[in-house]
Amino acid sequence: MKLTPEQVAQFDRDGYLFFPSLFTPEESKLLNDAVPALYERREVYNVREKNSDAVRTNFAAHLYSAPFARLARHPRMVGPVQSLLGDKLYMHQFKINGKMAFAGDVWQWHQDYGTWLNDDQMPDARAMNIAIFLDDVTEFNGPLMFIPGSHKKGVVDAKHDVTTTSYPLWTVDNELIRQLVERAGGHGGFDAAGRHVDGGIVSPKGPAGSMILFHSCLVHASGSNLSPYDRVAVYLSLCAVSNHIRRFKRPEYIAHRDFTPIECLPDDCLLKPYPVDLPWRDGVPASALQTSPDAMKIAA
Amino acid sequence: MKLTPEQVAQFDRDGYLFFPSLFTPEESKLLNDAVPALYERREVYNVREKNSDAVRTNFAAHLYSAPFARLARHPRMVGPVQSLLGDKLYMHQFKINGKMAFAGDVWQWHQDYGTWLNDDQMPDARAMNIAIFLDDVTEFNGPLMFIPGSHKKGVVDAKHDVTTTSYPLWTVDNELIRQLVERAGGHGGFDAAGRHVDGGIVSPKGPAGSMILFHSCLVHASGSNLSPYDRVAVYLSLCAVSNHIRRFKRPEYIAHRDFTPIECLPDDCLLKPYPVDLPWRDGVPASALQTSPDAMKIAA
Repeated sequence: MKLTPEQVAQFDRDGYLFFPSLFTPEESKLLNDAVPALYERREVYNVREKNSDAVRTNFAAHLYSAPFARLARHPRMVGPVQSLLGDKLYMHQFKINGKMAFAGDVWQWHQDYGTWLNDDQMPDARAMNIAIFLDDVTEFNGPLMFIPGSHKKGVVDAKHDVTTTSYPLWTVDNELIRQLVERAGGHGGFDAAGRHVDGGIVSPKGPAGSMILFHSCLVHASGSNLSPYDRVAVYLSLCAVSNHIRRFKRPEYIAHRDFTPIECLPDDCLLKPYPVDLPWRDGVPASALQTSPDAMKIAA
Repeated sequence: MKLTPEQVAQFDRDGYLFFPSLFTPEESKLLNDAVPALYERREVYNVREKNSDAVRTNFAAHLYSAPFARLARHPRMVGPVQSLLGDKLYMHQFKINGKMAFAGDVWQWHQDYGTWLNDDQMPDARAMNIAIFLDDVTEFNGPLMFIPGSHKKGVVDAKHDVTTTSYPLWTVDNELIRQLVERAGGHGGFDAAGRHVDGGIVSPKGPAGSMILFHSCLVHASGSNLSPYDRVAVYLSLCAVSNHIRRFKRPEYIAHRDFTPIECLPDDCLLKPYPVDLPWRDGVPASALQTSPDAMKIAA
């Protein structure tokens, strides 16, 4: 899938692109149906919510689940990223975020690349985030929120929040969020029919199968899910191979160390049983839990 | 202000009515400008958020703040309630809920009348909730959410949640919420333009000055406010005088014990300095903090 010049310009300006219903209901259902069995596992790669047993985020499913291994090689997902980064890509991070009915907690305002730079020593922001909805996303089940254009600020100051939720995050200061939102259009307004007109926060919503592509410096957050409907989404972070991380401070199931370029499967790969390698099928290898504060220590 | 037969039918069916921009920007600004000085006070009537100093809810401002004392007697607010309850009214509860920028926490799914019955021994659900927006309300600053028609269930089972937030609440069980939402239209859908079509959860949003009137058995909740914009709203609960509470288990600043019927001021009362009585101007009287587990013990 190639991007149009308009899409490229839009991405440059706003920092994200939205592709409603890019995957069919059949394709997204097939992925979603595979999630409960993964979430049930008492494995280190399932991080649960602070106040419940619901899974907040599952890591690295593309290494032990065939449907997600195929998604990680899907041309409809990889194509646009390749078109924007102009390099071969490897999978830096792979998450299935739960945001489960009633239990899904907030993700505070943050940038992803800040973490990748600080923790993983990824040289540049030549990496891209993809969100694929496995459930319908509405205003009621905790949709992703963006501050359009905030990626233009590059890496901004952040503090390590280890208390608000169960997953530590480098979060952006409230005063800076206020400035970025103001610059992006502020509070928005209301049209004659009483509908809200977008201001400095946007929130792409749509049916299961929709995809968002967003810049790794784009500031984003999401609210809690008080609705009775799950909002499961796959978050894939693809990095240019030449821009691979230089430090293994975080375990391998969070920040991958295999920089082999992704080879795409055919477009129907979610529906047909193309063979895929599942190296962690029998469990997470001990080496994947090893970490080092020094550059490339484990790899050396 | 009288309601039309269509509005009465709509209220009966859905359990709420929405009046966008019922108060002018000038009127709502005048009220909103009075809030910070009230929130600053270190008084028992200011309940702060669990994890911050931001005010979650302020009680009884109509007894010590002239602008809010006038709002409590406003014909545009009182008229529709009187039209639906067909009785003289007194003020059962008066709150200014903060839902402040970045800090505003969730209110879990609940009914108000359940609390008024269990704690205050209010005989019937002949009391009405009013919400008046002092800030613009959008999908991003924690709008109120309703399950339309849920008031028809009467009082439903609830459990006393004293842990989730700083304010104890009788909250409704998740499974029952799921059933009520399903019955009311479920998850909703998406139209051809990709807009979400309302299902079993609705969320009236609009400019400051808008008003919602809702049944005291209507199940409602609101999410957190991660945006940089406050969402201050006044919540007034008006009760039919003949339906006054029978027990003073909660302090008087939370559940009022003065059953004198509200006498409305003229329609321009927010803009002109009509005299109003402010009995708590010099502080909350000691008697207002007294409580009793028995019926009408203090009043007797």
